[in-house]
Formats: sequence, structure tokens, C-alpha cells
Amino acid sequence: MTDPFVVVGADAAGLSAASKFRREAPDRDVVVFEKGRWISFAYCGMPYFIEGRIEHMSNLLSLSPSEVDDRGIDLRRGHEVVGVDPEAGTVAVETAEGDRFEQPYGDLLVATGGRAVTGPLDVRGVDGAFTLHDMDAAAAIDAYVAEPDAYDPARADVSAVDRERVDRNAAMPAPETAAIVGGGYVGVEMAEALTGRGLDVHLFQRSEHLLPPFGEAVGERVETELAERGVTVHTGSPVEELVGDDRIEAVAFDGESLAVDLAVVGVGIEPNTELLSGTGAELGEGGAIRTDEYGRTNLPDVYAAGDCATAIHAVTGEEAWMPLGLTANRSGRAIGSTVAGDPTLVGDIAGTAVVKAFDQECGRVGLVEEDAAVEAGFDPVSETVTAGSRSGYYPGAAETDVTLVADRDTKRLIGGSIVGPDRAAVRVNTLATALEADLTVPELERLDLAYAPPFSPVWDPILVAAKVLTGSLEG
Amino acid sequence: MTDPFVVVGADAAGLSAASKFRREAPDRDVVVFEKGRWISFAYCGMPYFIEGRIEHMSNLLSLSPSEVDDRGIDLRRGHEVVGVDPEAGTVAVETAEGDRFEQPYGDLLVATGGRAVTGPLDVRGVDGAFTLHDMDAAAAIDAYVAEPDAYDPARADVSAVDRERVDRNAAMPAPETAAIVGGGYVGVEMAEALTGRGLDVHLFQRSEHLLPPFGEAVGERVETELAERGVTVHTGSPVEELVGDDRIEAVAFDGESLAVDLAVVGVGIEPNTELLSGTGAELGEGGAIRTDEYGRTNLPDVYAAGDCATAIHAVTGEEAWMPLGLTANRSGRAIGSTVAGDPTLVGDIAGTAVVKAFDQECGRVGLVEEDAAVEAGFDPVSETVTAGSRSGYYPGAAETDVTLVADRDTKRLIGGSIVGPDRAAVRVNTLATALEADLTVPELERLDLAYAPPFSPVWDPILVAAKVLTGSLEG
Repeated sequence: MTDPFVVVGADAAGLSAASKFRREAPDRDVVVFEKGRWISFAYCGMPYFIEGRIEHMSNLLSLSPSEVDDRGIDLRRGHEVVGVDPEAGTVAVETAEGDRFEQPYGDLLVATGGRAVTGPLDVRGVDGAFTLHDMDAAAAIDAYVAEPDAYDPARADVSAVDRERVDRNAAMPAPETAAIVGGGYVGVEMAEALTGRGLDVHLFQRSEHLLPPFGEAVGERVETELAERGVTVHTGSPVEELVGDDRIEAVAFDGESLAVDLAVVGVGIEPNTELLSGTGAELGEGGAIRTDEYGRTNLPDVYAAGDCATAIHAVTGEEAWMPLGLTANRSGRAIGSTVAGDPTLVGDIAGTAVVKAFDQECGRVGLVEEDAAVEAGFDPVSETVTAGSRSGYYPGAAETDVTLVADRDTKRLIGGSIVGPDRAAVRVNTLATALEADLTVPELERLDLAYAPPFSPVWDPILVAAKVLTGSLEG
Repeated sequence: MTDPFVVVGADAAGLSAASKFRREAPDRDVVVFEKGRWISFAYCGMPYFIEGRIEHMSNLLSLSPSEVDDRGIDLRRGHEVVGVDPEAGTVAVETAEGDRFEQPYGDLLVATGGRAVTGPLDVRGVDGAFTLHDMDAAAAIDAYVAEPDAYDPARADVSAVDRERVDRNAAMPAPETAAIVGGGYVGVEMAEALTGRGLDVHLFQRSEHLLPPFGEAVGERVETELAERGVTVHTGSPVEELVGDDRIEAVAFDGESLAVDLAVVGVGIEPNTELLSGTGAELGEGGAIRTDEYGRTNLPDVYAAGDCATAIHAVTGEEAWMPLGLTANRSGRAIGSTVAGDPTLVGDIAGTAVVKAFDQECGRVGLVEEDAAVEAGFDPVSETVTAGSRSGYYPGAAETDVTLVADRDTKRLIGGSIVGPDRAAVRVNTLATALEADLTVPELERLDLAYAPPFSPVWDPILVAAKVLTGSLEG
């Protein structure tokens, strides 16, 4: 009997792998160790829960522990894997009760995810200051934002929740002014969420534009949208300090101070790789665990997937680290197949991302920022156009900005972004597909894209942009 | 001095070519002959005008004659080209006033479009019976549908309109019951439009499903949608006769008769190719003028584009005839460049089409129907899935049906369709791009498509379908 497939981490990558493996290899055991109480939560849904669009926290759970059990997966919550011995083929496990044991593995998947970074801004021990990278934080923010007498405990209707933390936050007076530190997509989503809860929201972004990976055209449109919705956007304004001992009182920036009673720090995440320290496992981009096209690390029978692992970038062909939901699910699923005996590519990543900012839909893919393109060895040429989302005469036609980036010599499309209020986000999938197929911009210009007055003008905004960029490349 | 670039037909293809040529070859003349009074009208917008979503007919004009003049194009309306002498390099032109002259050309573009076919159902001379393939018909239907005392003549606010016909139709009593003959996209759009005008609408489709090129999954969903909106759909019911001498009284079908006071016949179009009869020009698929990858006919210096011309199909690599708006614009524009001295591919067509049926958005691309795939030499394998348009917990998530068709041996994607109420239509562009890039279904499954709760679940509906179809191909 082969030793079991052992998975560390019961979120998107880990449970996708375990589920796929279970179906493909019914005769082999699979054990999933999760150090915490939560499994399979929809991280990307937390801002919408806090906003109140989603009624119960349980709505964000993809799978309950009993559903995982029902799949025939041996899920052990409260079990932290604290060491890996690749030569012995074992992991060391500590339980929440303090027990410790060795677990042999035939194959091992490290799917330990990432954790929020805060830079110099330590939120620990300061009431009203939060990061947003786990369900307990989401539940606590939601409770903190509510007036004490208006909070409904059924909002956090999951047994795993840290009830004491929720109750403590619910008991505090509701905040009126929020500082969000970080203008990436979590920051933008939280600005919308907290505005929706009635707060006066200030969004701080270190660089000159919001959503830097989406490029300037998107950043500027989103900044305008946020301002129109009452959010005060501070660009070029890194927050230097969270002021307050027990409870947040202010944020300090640019020699100024803004009194706030809520601060959410969303400046990024870093991969959880400590488990493999000292094992000889190579780390790569972003300090994440280096993996190959099958999700394998350099250690025998050891895989990594999700926010803790690198992937191959579709445009550069080089290693990249871009922690995103689909990547985690897809690579986990592929590794489940591979371990079950059907070698399956985890797939390249194109850095495809979409975000909603009130009525603006934003998308990006590939290499949008000039620096990133130059660093990858390209000679980037870029054009941004504004085009209608529908035939001009059809009600609801809205200005859509498309940015395309190509390599000058090869004319190959290497990146793009899109922003607009009318079905803009899903249009980025056209660019993602073109990127992964290595299309040139003239080829993109000749695509037979859909036209009907309610959905697109004769020339789709992407085709308009491709025409203009082709002109620049030939000019 | 080279003889001018002569264009026959002042609609999408003709004016795209003339405009592009004008910019690229400022020193050469371009003459556009148009036999009628209308130019550059948005055929695809007519149902929405009739519905009343669009206030004035002038909204549907992309370019006015004076704007064409301002571009430096010699536009001659009321000039019918009645003959081509490819050896002499001349066309024979007859004016509306009865004059006739020969016009030498250096290059010639035939962009004569198509005309509605009616099968055995002759609408001529029968009040209340119409086809819908020109602006005068649209103006007449709009006037006919209105109560005489409620019709606003400013609706048809274009000088080219056949005012006498409009006035005559406006004076007739408003219809209450409409028969639409033909369940293609024009029929479906007209069903929505006339329902919006308060009529009791019956839609007749010869075959068992609406929108046959979109496949059964789309046809069934649209049939349900129409029924829920009060349209009576008769499938498998070819209309055999329009009954009525001076005014439409009924339609006969299946041995039954339905009293109606409006009939719109929308069963297709055929290409206008008579101009080239006897010149030795080859015709191809659908009886359209055969063209190559640059839009050239087999006659020297003679091009054809738009609804009268064939194109190359992206999936089969074979000749096809699919009269659609982008094809006309794109091929016209490419020919304008080519004639100006910059050889430019007209581009393949993928048969990409989208249509709105009340709240359902429908798209299709490539070879969807099994017969078409078999005829093209493929061994088609098809799967249809129903997946959410957004994360399940996000409000507005809606069932989206995706059908994918692949070739069994090569696993290449050869067609697909999509239907749903939430941003479904533009998603078909992902499939169009994949088709044109010759992706296999496993490659499609590994695309890095966009995920964010308001716009897509982790696995985009297209990825869900690709997973299932990959399973079938490997099973």
C-alpha cells in the first residue's frame, strides 16, 4: 500500500487537489491537514460580505467540513504541519491539543497560502485596525462597523468563527471615518464596501495611481469614480503610522494626520514558505516556493500550489508569483490528477485580474506597466483608446478605455487593460486568450469579434485599440 | 494619372473602403456609386428603432452624405451601376434621371450587399406585410404599428426616406396581432420589438428550434424567454401563405390559419451579384462573389466585399458566406488599404454572432450544429453545461449555458455557443479568439480567465464547459 497523498492547507489549492485526487485514485488515501478551523473560504468575497451585499458569512464557504468528509477526504482541522523530512517522506504534525506525530506521505502538496503584510504598520493589539486576509478578520470588521445595538450575530453564522473577537468588536461604538491603506484591488473593494456601510472613507495609495498593475488609464478612471462616490483618494501618500494605543485614533501621512476610527491595511500578501525551510526546497519569485509546469518542487514527490507557489508566466515564459484564486484552484486540481497518475499541466498564468469599483469594471492581463515589460526584455509600445461599449445609438452605450501593449519588434500582444461601466471586465478574457495564443496585434485586429447593437459597436473596443496600436507599430 | 478607385454601393463595405483609401492614397480619386438614396445605415439597429428604444431614424445613420463629401469622397447617390466591362476597365452607370455613362476604373470594388428573400411569401403589394432589410421598410413598419393619431412624423427624420410610403402606413389603423416569419436573429429581435410596442406576437420557425446556428441549448432558452414575455412561438411550423389581397389578413400554416394584421418576413437574405453576370466573375458559397484573402475576385483589379462576397472560414479554412456587419466593415477597410498600395488581409470569419432576446444574451461562433461540423470533415464531440455567471454568493449570479464543440481526433475547438442573462454575449469573444488561434479544448481549459465575484466564479463558465468536454474527449 502506497503511503497517502498528504496535503497541507485546506483552502482552494489544497482541497481542489484532494478532491480531484479522490475521484481519480479511489484506492489511495488522501489526508488534508489544516492548522486552523476554517476551510475553503472565498477570500475574494469578504469585501462584499462586509459591504452587506452578502447576508451570511456561511455564504462564502464553498465546502463544509462534512462535505469534505463525504467526498472521502480525511480532513484534519486543528492540525499544523510543522516540519517536512523529504528523505524520510514524512511530515511532523502538531495538533491544537498539543499532540505531535509523524505522518508518512507518498506525495506531498504544500498549499499553505499567504499572509497579509503590513509594512511598518502593525495592526496587532490595536482595536479598529485590521488586515483582511482571513474570515475572522472579515467577521470582526463587519461587527466593528455596525452600531452595537444593530449588529446581528447571525451575520457570522459559521461555527469556526472567533466568536469572542466578533463580540468584542460588535460592542465597540461604530466608526465614522475609515482609512484604507493600499490602493490595490482589496483597497478599492473595501473603499466601496465601507462607503456602502455609510462611512467616510479615505483611501491611501503609496504611488501616483490606484491599481498600479492595471495601468494608468484604469487607475485614473477608478480614482474619478471613487471621488464621485464620496471616497477621498490620497495618491502619492504612503501612510507612515497608525496612531493609537488601544484603539486606532489617526493615520499619519505626508506630515499630516487624519483622525480615523477604522483602519484597514491591504498592502499585499507574502507566501507562507516556512514549512519548507531547511529542506533544500528552492524558493523563487516573490520568495514563493519554486514549482515547475506540473507544480513540482525540486524535492522528490513534493508539490506546491496556490498563493505559496510560483508559476510560469504566459508572456515571459519565466517564473512569476501572482497569488490569485483561479491559479490556486487550477494548479491544485492539476496536481491532484498528476499525483493520481495522470500527469497534468498546471497551466501558465497571464496575470488576468478583474475588479469592480462601484460602477466601473476593470480588467488587466499580461504586462501592462512599462517597467514590467522592459524588465522582461520587451520593447513595449502602448496605446490607450476610448471606445463605445455598444452602438452609439443604443441606450446604455458607455465609454470603455482599452490599453494594449505590444512588443515593437515582434508586434506580439504582451498586455492590456480595460475599464468601463458596461460589461468591460469580462472583455479582458479576449485579451487573455490572445496573449496565451501569442497573437500579434495585427492578428488581434483581424479577430472576428461579436457585434450587435446592445452589446458592442461594429468594431469592438478591443479591435479599435488594436487598429490604433497596429498603426503605431507600423508608423 | 491612374483611373479612380470606383466603389459600387455606399454602405458598410463600400464606405469603409472609400474612407480608408481616401486617407491612404490622397492623390487618387475615389468615386462611390449608390443606386438609392440611403447610405451607411445601421441595418442591425432597425429592430431597436421599431421597438422605440431609438428615438429618430437619423440616429441609425453612421455617416451623412455631406460627411462623406467632407472626407473627399465623390459620392453619387441615385447612380446605379448596371454593367462592368473588366477588359475595358469601365462600369456603365445609369442615373435616376435616366442618363447613362461609362466610368473608367483603376480598381473596382463591388459592395452591392444583399436583399431579403421571402421564399413563397410575396409581401409586395400587400399592406401590413413587410420584409426588413432597408430603412424605408423600417420607417414604414414603425409608422404602420402606430395609431394614426399618435404617429410622430419626426420619427423618420431623414430626407432620404420614402415619405409617401411612411404617410400611407401611418394612416392605416394600428395592428394588434403580428406574425413574424422566421426565427433567426432578425425574427427574434422583431419579436421583442413588436412586443415592446404592445402587439400580440406570433413567431414562426420552420425548424424545431429558434436560432438554428446558435444550437439547441440557445434556441430552447430563447424559446422559453419569448414565451415568458408573451410571444407565442410556433416551431416546426413553416408559414405557407400570407393571406390577404390588399392588406394582410392571416397567415396559413400546418393547415391552420391565424388572423393577423401585421406580418414581417425575415427568413434570410441573398447576395446581390447580378452586376457581375456575364463578366466571368466566379461565384461561390451561397451564390456570393468569390473572393480571396485580399478580397479580390478572379477579375483583374476587381474586388468584392460585404454581404455580396464570400470569405474564408477560420475553422474550416474553406470558403463561406456569412453576411455580417463586422465582416463588411473589416473587409472594406482592408481593400481600401490594399488598393491604396498596402496589401492587407481581409481576415478570416468565424461566424461570430450575438443576439439579444429580452433579457437573454446569446452568442455563437464557429461550427455549432453537428451537421455543419460533419460536412466540414470533423468528427464533432459536444457538451453543454450550465454554470453560474458570478460567484454563487454574489447577487445577480445567473445560469449561463455554454456549449462547446470539438473535433474528436485533434481535440481542437471548432465551435461554441453561450446564453444567459448576465454578460453572456461578450463572453463569446473568448471562444472566437480561441477558435482563430486553433486552440484545443485542453488548452482552452488552461486559459487564465478572469475571476472576481461580481463578474465570474473562480471557474468561468467557459472553463467549466472545457473541463467537461476535455473529459468526454479523453473518456
